[in-house]
Amino acid sequence: MINNLFNPGSIAVIGASRNPEKIGYAVLMNLKETGFRGNIYPINKSADEILGFKCYPSVSDVAGKIDLAVLALPAKYAPDQIRECVKIGVSYIIAIPGGFSETGEEGRKLEEEIKGILKQSDTRLIGPNTVGVYFPHSSVNTALTPPDRVMFPPKGDIAFISQSGALGLLTMDSISEYGVGISAFVNLGNRIDLNEIELLDYFHSDEKTRSIVMYIENVTEGRPFYEKIKEINRTKPVVVLKAGRTEASAKAASLHTGAMATNDAVFDGALRQAGVVRAYDETELLDYGRVLAYSRPLKGKNIAVVTTAGGVGVITTDYVSSKVNGIGLSMAVLSEETKRRIKEVIVPFGSAENPVDLTADGSVSDYGKVIGILMEDASVDGIIVYALPQTPKMDKSVVNVIEEFSRKEKPIIVGVIGSRMGKEILIGLESKKIPAFPSVQRTVKAVRALYDYSTYIERRKTQ
Amino acid sequence: MINNLFNPGSIAVIGASRNPEKIGYAVLMNLKETGFRGNIYPINKSADEILGFKCYPSVSDVAGKIDLAVLALPAKYAPDQIRECVKIGVSYIIAIPGGFSETGEEGRKLEEEIKGILKQSDTRLIGPNTVGVYFPHSSVNTALTPPDRVMFPPKGDIAFISQSGALGLLTMDSISEYGVGISAFVNLGNRIDLNEIELLDYFHSDEKTRSIVMYIENVTEGRPFYEKIKEINRTKPVVVLKAGRTEASAKAASLHTGAMATNDAVFDGALRQAGVVRAYDETELLDYGRVLAYSRPLKGKNIAVVTTAGGVGVITTDYVSSKVNGIGLSMAVLSEETKRRIKEVIVPFGSAENPVDLTADGSVSDYGKVIGILMEDASVDGIIVYALPQTPKMDKSVVNVIEEFSRKEKPIIVGVIGSRMGKEILIGLESKKIPAFPSVQRTVKAVRALYDYSTYIERRKTQ
Repeated sequence: MINNLFNPGSIAVIGASRNPEKIGYAVLMNLKETGFRGNIYPINKSADEILGFKCYPSVSDVAGKIDLAVLALPAKYAPDQIRECVKIGVSYIIAIPGGFSETGEEGRKLEEEIKGILKQSDTRLIGPNTVGVYFPHSSVNTALTPPDRVMFPPKGDIAFISQSGALGLLTMDSISEYGVGISAFVNLGNRIDLNEIELLDYFHSDEKTRSIVMYIENVTEGRPFYEKIKEINRTKPVVVLKAGRTEASAKAASLHTGAMATNDAVFDGALRQAGVVRAYDETELLDYGRVLAYSRPLKGKNIAVVTTAGGVGVITTDYVSSKVNGIGLSMAVLSEETKRRIKEVIVPFGSAENPVDLTADGSVSDYGKVIGILMEDASVDGIIVYALPQTPKMDKSVVNVIEEFSRKEKPIIVGVIGSRMGKEILIGLESKKIPAFPSVQRTVKAVRALYDYSTYIERRKTQ
Repeated sequence: MINNLFNPGSIAVIGASRNPEKIGYAVLMNLKETGFRGNIYPINKSADEILGFKCYPSVSDVAGKIDLAVLALPAKYAPDQIRECVKIGVSYIIAIPGGFSETGEEGRKLEEEIKGILKQSDTRLIGPNTVGVYFPHSSVNTALTPPDRVMFPPKGDIAFISQSGALGLLTMDSISEYGVGISAFVNLGNRIDLNEIELLDYFHSDEKTRSIVMYIENVTEGRPFYEKIKEINRTKPVVVLKAGRTEASAKAASLHTGAMATNDAVFDGALRQAGVVRAYDETELLDYGRVLAYSRPLKGKNIAVVTTAGGVGVITTDYVSSKVNGIGLSMAVLSEETKRRIKEVIVPFGSAENPVDLTADGSVSDYGKVIGILMEDASVDGIIVYALPQTPKMDKSVVNVIEEFSRKEKPIIVGVIGSRMGKEILIGLESKKIPAFPSVQRTVKAVRALYDYSTYIERRKTQ
């Protein structure tokens, strides 16, 4: 049944419009541009055709089955339209308009009316007050934003559930620049029917999803949510950005989504218990989602670093080894044999100590050799590799060299800083599902997220 | 005299080459591409002309005065070439090659020889083992990197001193993408003659420089360095990224630059005493340098936030108001009058509480009105404004609206996340010297840096 949401055969756009300023235009345009291959039914009383699609006066006039209906009309029209959808057996409704409980008493009553209509029907609803959903694998994009405003990410492995619509859109927009893909995006909106737990269930079993990232300000029900993420996180990593941590922000959150926030210390304790990695902002959320989706586990604290820029090696060592302003892990102490072998590869004034410094003379093939040697050193648990595009011998082939090792036992996390070629290398690594980040801090923090998740999984095994 | 370094009338490139793989080619090419308008003298025994410039067999063969000579030949040739430079009275030498004390005893002896040559001469030397210098205001670029590898930032207000060459290059490369400008870049290298204190003195009095940012692993002399940054920081902000904080990284630093690192607790205490803001990575270094160069002081803890994305407002409130994973300042409690006035501007379902949420309906002119109202509320000390390009009514004119208020008494820090238009807005803001950052975390951390510096200055006044 939920397949009709994620892989619909047909989509109706209620309130489809020719006016580019209307949501009903943006939704239709997004569906068209994403290349949805099922039937598209624009619902519009007065138009014959919009953007090349034949229009229908109402959903009841559509002869075929409607799996998914997108409601793009103002709130006051919602009850009648939803009633009609229920009548003809639409499986899922995405109710985009705002103007419900988030705006006050009148809107709350409208929501109650809708709940009543949905009750005892098989029709399920996402929203209202949602920016929509985006499922790249089935080419479904019901976003309310005009396509030129937001870039949508390619097909990928990360399911993204967001209680905030705008935050979801800007996060997708930001990651698209680096080719970071997702398996699905759902903005829950006011969550009067379908909630995060049902979505978590779906993504748990979804083979296209390798990690789940969530932005939430509060949960529908605390205990079931906790049990659910705990269960899922054992086999598929979950990353949670729970905002509203302080009194000031919990108040802001309750104004934003209209629900009371949970006590943060309690929530934080629950996340720890469940071994769920916590993110604190939009960047960390997807960074951690990626490293947990792509990487092999990091089975110990000892990190080796490979760089062509000495300073980057030193700053990284600071962040790796410091507990204050750092992640509090350790720099691997390389064996004499490892150092001897590395010395044979690098130039005499490079460093075979950890951080290994190939210097600006380091070539892509040197990278390969050094990574290979570090992989064989039992004292190394994971490797941070900086592929710095400013050094003369760096080029895009480094992606293939790193890929060769990225399926081996020890995780490799890559840092690529600056330059147009740097962005191409990042996109190349992402396409191979190798976690790579555009700054020292983001690279090292991803290592910590991986360490935390890996040790949780390991601890469970031994219990 | 030091003017001959920063504003040379003539530059000789010793070891200029036609071979694109040679440093002597890259340096000449960079000088040419940067558009240096003084005399350029390639020094090459066998060529008549390179890249359109007439060659000379040696510096002694140049008829005119040489203010600056760039040494781009291997280390072993350095003493003879430097001797000749001294003889004809070259003011400054930038000695690019590595192969000196950083590689061992033989290199150390070469350095001693060079020191002997320089002694009792008026010739000063930067390096050896430096990637070069870049002075956009006088179009001097002696970087060893081929021009297609690294983007160089435009003219700006930040002087950047780096002990690590590669870190300097990649940092300049990264900021260029966002149009962030600098007044000067100097890579100190092995620092056998000219050191950071002399540079600090110059930038202190340099009218083009409004803040000084430094990457260092160790200092030539602790006490004079401390006294110098303390003195300068009173009138011109200094930001220090001191790497080698832990035992592991101090060891890495000593391998990198060959000098012993200072105890970090001592160093950190000294920075605090001097009121110097500390950065922990390449991103923070320039972020803090920009906010301190551009912003008016932040005279209290109370921050107002303006957003069109509720979630961004909540995450920002978390970071502003939390001491754990946050900057530990406060969200301003807006007056009733302020809230009343804001309500007249925003849509009914927006929020006039702090964070002020204009919602996706917020227009650029709404931004202006709300910022104006917040400026007049005595409970607000500084304003974080998110100009989010995903909302339909946002456009580049927001730059002018923010500029209008940016010279008023209270500082405005801007966040712009995602999208091509977002990058254009960031570049536009930078061109107006308004501090703007591409993520929530970076925006909020810049506010903390500004708060720390402002309170230090304020405290000094009242003492």
